[in-house]
Amino acid sequence: MRIARGFALLPVLALLGAAPAPGDAVAEVDPFIGVDWGGGAFVGAAVPFGMVKLGPDMESFDGVPTKFGYRSAGRILGFSHTHLSGAAGKYGNIRVMPASGPLDMTDLASPRSAESDAPGYYTSKLTRPDVRAELTADARAGVHRYTFLSARPAHLTVRIDQMLSKSPGPEDQRFLGGSVHLASRHEIDGMGRYAGGWNMGGEYRVYFALVTDRDASGVRSWTGGAPSAGKDVTVSGDHPLGAVLDFGAHAGQTVTARVGLSFVSIHQARHNALAAAGFDATRAAATARWRRALAPITVDGGTPAQRRELYTALYHVMLLPTDRTGENPNWQSGEPYYDDYYTLWDTFRSQWPLLTLIAPDRSRDMVRSLIDIYRHDGWLPDGRSGNINGRTQGGSNADVVIADAFVKGLRGIDYRTALQAVLKDATVSPENPQKEGRGGLPDYLGKGYISTRYERAGSRTVEYAYDDYAIAELACGLGRDDLARAFAKRAGNWANLWDRSLSVEGVSGFLRPRNPDGSWAAPYLVERGTWPDFMYEADIWTYSLYAPQDVARLIGLSGGKAGFIKRLDTLFDHGHFDMGNEPGFLIPMLYHWAGRPDLSVDRIIAYRERDFTDRRAGIPGNDDAGAMSSWLIFQMLGFYPVAGQDVYLIGSPVFPRSTIDLGEGKRLTILAEGLGSDTTARYVQSAELNGKPLDRAWFRQSEIADGGTLRLHMGSAPSTWGTATPPPSLSDGAQFDHCPSADG
Amino acid sequence: MRIARGFALLPVLALLGAAPAPGDAVAEVDPFIGVDWGGGAFVGAAVPFGMVKLGPDMESFDGVPTKFGYRSAGRILGFSHTHLSGAAGKYGNIRVMPASGPLDMTDLASPRSAESDAPGYYTSKLTRPDVRAELTADARAGVHRYTFLSARPAHLTVRIDQMLSKSPGPEDQRFLGGSVHLASRHEIDGMGRYAGGWNMGGEYRVYFALVTDRDASGVRSWTGGAPSAGKDVTVSGDHPLGAVLDFGAHAGQTVTARVGLSFVSIHQARHNALAAAGFDATRAAATARWRRALAPITVDGGTPAQRRELYTALYHVMLLPTDRTGENPNWQSGEPYYDDYYTLWDTFRSQWPLLTLIAPDRSRDMVRSLIDIYRHDGWLPDGRSGNINGRTQGGSNADVVIADAFVKGLRGIDYRTALQAVLKDATVSPENPQKEGRGGLPDYLGKGYISTRYERAGSRTVEYAYDDYAIAELACGLGRDDLARAFAKRAGNWANLWDRSLSVEGVSGFLRPRNPDGSWAAPYLVERGTWPDFMYEADIWTYSLYAPQDVARLIGLSGGKAGFIKRLDTLFDHGHFDMGNEPGFLIPMLYHWAGRPDLSVDRIIAYRERDFTDRRAGIPGNDDAGAMSSWLIFQMLGFYPVAGQDVYLIGSPVFPRSTIDLGEGKRLTILAEGLGSDTTARYVQSAELNGKPLDRAWFRQSEIADGGTLRLHMGSAPSTWGTATPPPSLSDGAQFDHCPSADG
Repeated sequence: MRIARGFALLPVLALLGAAPAPGDAVAEVDPFIGVDWGGGAFVGAAVPFGMVKLGPDMESFDGVPTKFGYRSAGRILGFSHTHLSGAAGKYGNIRVMPASGPLDMTDLASPRSAESDAPGYYTSKLTRPDVRAELTADARAGVHRYTFLSARPAHLTVRIDQMLSKSPGPEDQRFLGGSVHLASRHEIDGMGRYAGGWNMGGEYRVYFALVTDRDASGVRSWTGGAPSAGKDVTVSGDHPLGAVLDFGAHAGQTVTARVGLSFVSIHQARHNALAAAGFDATRAAATARWRRALAPITVDGGTPAQRRELYTALYHVMLLPTDRTGENPNWQSGEPYYDDYYTLWDTFRSQWPLLTLIAPDRSRDMVRSLIDIYRHDGWLPDGRSGNINGRTQGGSNADVVIADAFVKGLRGIDYRTALQAVLKDATVSPENPQKEGRGGLPDYLGKGYISTRYERAGSRTVEYAYDDYAIAELACGLGRDDLARAFAKRAGNWANLWDRSLSVEGVSGFLRPRNPDGSWAAPYLVERGTWPDFMYEADIWTYSLYAPQDVARLIGLSGGKAGFIKRLDTLFDHGHFDMGNEPGFLIPMLYHWAGRPDLSVDRIIAYRERDFTDRRAGIPGNDDAGAMSSWLIFQMLGFYPVAGQDVYLIGSPVFPRSTIDLGEGKRLTILAEGLGSDTTARYVQSAELNGKPLDRAWFRQSEIADGGTLRLHMGSAPSTWGTATPPPSLSDGAQFDHCPSADG
Repeated sequence: MRIARGFALLPVLALLGAAPAPGDAVAEVDPFIGVDWGGGAFVGAAVPFGMVKLGPDMESFDGVPTKFGYRSAGRILGFSHTHLSGAAGKYGNIRVMPASGPLDMTDLASPRSAESDAPGYYTSKLTRPDVRAELTADARAGVHRYTFLSARPAHLTVRIDQMLSKSPGPEDQRFLGGSVHLASRHEIDGMGRYAGGWNMGGEYRVYFALVTDRDASGVRSWTGGAPSAGKDVTVSGDHPLGAVLDFGAHAGQTVTARVGLSFVSIHQARHNALAAAGFDATRAAATARWRRALAPITVDGGTPAQRRELYTALYHVMLLPTDRTGENPNWQSGEPYYDDYYTLWDTFRSQWPLLTLIAPDRSRDMVRSLIDIYRHDGWLPDGRSGNINGRTQGGSNADVVIADAFVKGLRGIDYRTALQAVLKDATVSPENPQKEGRGGLPDYLGKGYISTRYERAGSRTVEYAYDDYAIAELACGLGRDDLARAFAKRAGNWANLWDRSLSVEGVSGFLRPRNPDGSWAAPYLVERGTWPDFMYEADIWTYSLYAPQDVARLIGLSGGKAGFIKRLDTLFDHGHFDMGNEPGFLIPMLYHWAGRPDLSVDRIIAYRERDFTDRRAGIPGNDDAGAMSSWLIFQMLGFYPVAGQDVYLIGSPVFPRSTIDLGEGKRLTILAEGLGSDTTARYVQSAELNGKPLDRAWFRQSEIADGGTLRLHMGSAPSTWGTATPPPSLSDGAQFDHCPSADG
């Protein structure tokens, strides 16, 4: 960064946002946390929820780019403009790479050194071309700055035909063709057509315009072999496609390129490129946006590593979905448009509740975009990427997202249309149940469970039951008591697959497949894979405990509190819990319902401390658009949402003081008194909420909606606090007895 | 700590050793690393290899002390004087606990706060009696200092009848009886008799003498019910047994107690108590001893967390075995006497080679003690604790320990007697093969493998083959070429269980059980447990690769280098590798023999970075007397021993510069040039050893025995360095062709 002499250094730095001050949350973020071991966290430059995520894509062992883009070792193939975070196999489009010396467009990969990354800014030295690469981004454009350190002929290349996970597998991406237009000696634009990826979506088009800050000595297109000067090209099908700008051989020369992206048109891509500021100003603006985005959570105390974990997790939570408002090629509306819900099955459990708490306007816009997708595509999405719904995993999880927003009082949402949308999920069979809606619905509606006739029968049944509970909440709140009661009844359907006699490792009662005639099929004792299967990405230990609407009934089916505790202990102690996948997110806290919040705390701390660290291996599985990170954030703050309900469970904070800005001047402060720097003083001994004793190990959204103070007194030995009043359950009764009158 | 006014502060602190200076390795140690998730690292106060390890024992959920002693949460039951580290179910003897107010000897447990631990010093506040507890130790005595903060009647209690893992299970400990003698108003002595524990050992006796720095108002013994003033007691069998010293009710009063231990006599326990200095002097001496013990490894650079991990690991490596020279109740000799080899199966792979490198005199004494145990007990131990051999796990691993010392030129050892000892292992069936020697020897000698007639037939066969290789080395070095050739031949026995046709997950060729008639038995495809079983604590993926003496042959049996690499990749990628158990320690580096040290590096870094952290969950399994920690130390330094051979494999250092003091003024310096602060520049591009190019990814002890410099040039992309010359293998030939002439 260049600082004009004569300026006082610190104010300029603060203005540019490039050198965060001590205590600045931006400085706490380490984007390398969770890149290894399948965490797959994004590395590069982006703004919160930005459409452009510009980052390096690495060579894999066999020359094929990795599915995630970034790897800790290996050579950089180039810097592409679209990425997910914590999820694999989509995007990596419009790959830019500098080169020096003789040019071979098919052999550009370079080792790197001196790599660093921060919110909105990435840099590394590419040792082969001897180039310092710097990346920054605004929402719709990436800005690249390359400093050619040696006096060799310099090139800036762009490849359209390459992207992540390009291979012929069913979950891989395909290049369908595209075009390159050499607009001038400082501008190339064009378009690529892609399809596939994990969500098996159809074609999506990425338009781009690359504008450099200086004229090249030559501009050439490339379709294999030697690049051709001054020739526009279009290819159809998977053929080489790219372009190169050539510069002279001057040691120390810098080329800055603004690359605008669009999903609508080259015209808009060009607009997005030209709307981007210069490198330093773009970087400063990106830093400032991150500073605002991270501001709602402030903490006192904790170790540097803990603060790094917290703010990096918060950064991860705000990378996806992507705000593509105005970039929707399929319809136009005045509503916000977000893409890359990847997927709601991952994010509904804690990422959405977190955003609803700390970024309610963002959450509102995202829910509105879901409803607008329903209006125009006919269905709420579960996964959605490349402007296409798909794929479904567990249930129709948007139902829970909407209910969560509703019970938490999120305003500015057309809940009546939302009710139509979730009712469609619940009552209409979709044409393609891998894309949207609920598969196996005829069984579910007719029998109250899904039989072996359908794949994912077990996980679908229990997820649909919870989705139905969510619909009951929404219906009740909108005065549709008829619907509310009907769906509250359906919310008990999960138990229709419960086989009391099935006993495994000393625990009795598990979900079990049923044949279409209602008889039991063979138990599902060995998890075979993810699809097709009786359960999706988890086993009977996990899904048999998936009834957040009625844990009291789960306890009854497990032989009472003692039996339930033994079941949970067995699950954990026998290694059936997987912190690295979302279906189990709530399980460590189920002890709360059995009156043993201390046992929840032991499990939470065990996994929080072992599986989440401030290292490259610091996320225990795919971060899944920030889903894993959001679990960590809540558990570090000391509470955790029961997604879809206005209930938070109290755990064990990491920080002696945390403050959450709820917007509109409201603040929730969590004080953990007696907390040491370790995890010894982990158990709540007593608590006050807003100055009044709180003897429950949980609280409601309504109790903190206007902010307040939760004061926890911590100690090293379990206490009787929070043991008497468990969190609510459907079978406690009365939940849907008093819905408002119709249209009330 | 009290500092007399008028003294300059810093020199006094340095003298006392209580406040380590910046850069002091002692200050880098965090004994809480690896206490959770089964790491089981010792918490408390001890000196290197000290007989007394004084630390807190915690209440478990059901009131029974945990098997490890320490837990991160829960109440402290008291402070006992004997502990293992990273291993469970033995010791926890002579438990001291302060109390205040009305006394109930059966209800003393207290929550704690403000807990901290450092080498040689532990403190916490016991909130129930309102007492600040401080512990320190010398080799044979624990020194306790209790400050009673409230003006309540103060008590110092001791329980003889309690210890870790006291219950009737076969691997639990039993209390057999003991005695308490009220010697004066400031002295209690006595003895406890114990048996059992994980090693299922017979009776061991712990004598103690507790001497306070001031007279109590009363001294009482306790055998249940109310304590009795002035009465000595002896119990036989499992009955309550303890004592209490009563003090007045003075807020702020301090009681210091020196507790001498002995395994020989009360007289010696009393001597050990009285030989201990005051609290502050003992603490200063303990700190100074740790400073010397940690000094042989110095590093430049790395993060604070990395230095903390390194020095804590080094601390863990120096807790066991325990130096009990002069405390052997079974025989007297002029040789060193060490106990708590717990177990050699865990430690021979890297803990011993590390000590041989950085503490050769210690290693020499430990080997001498093994040989002296053979002289008097008739057998080398594998596990040994409580002065009793047992139990055996894999092979007769002392054979490898001795060979490792021998090939590395460790002097001052009676290798001729050692050869007799290992030959006895190899040729004589022990009376109790769970205690010592080799089980299944008749099969092994007659058939060249162990059949299904014996338990652990698979792991024993492959371990015995490597033990035989170790014997061949020793025999060769001692000029017994006849023996060397015979045992070199036996070293190929592992392949007698190799079934080329057994194919699992696309990999062909695995170890397989054979019936006594030589026919194949059913494949061992599901690991059932640890004992009895075909393999001990690991599966066919791990043990089929256990032939460190002949990886070249393993490669041949796996279809050549490509097949071998595919086998290793499958093992790792399908989750068959367990970083948390020792049998697989070498597997991440087996790629070296296939000419792909870069792939070794990727695996090493993956596990080093994910499974080892500076957290309470920072050791992936039982530390096993420092075995896990020693793996980490080598891999952080950037090389790893092939235990039992004079070969080290080069990996990927964490520190840009490390220096290892080899003793006698010799230093080995490892320079990693181009290393960043992350794991990006992980691959060696080229290397020099002592100024000369080194194109191998390994070196020999003889090349560094006089110290030197290993200079590694690091980069972010794999290179061809080290790919051409694999480490040695038995089937390369010539290894035992040129033994010295007899007695040469």
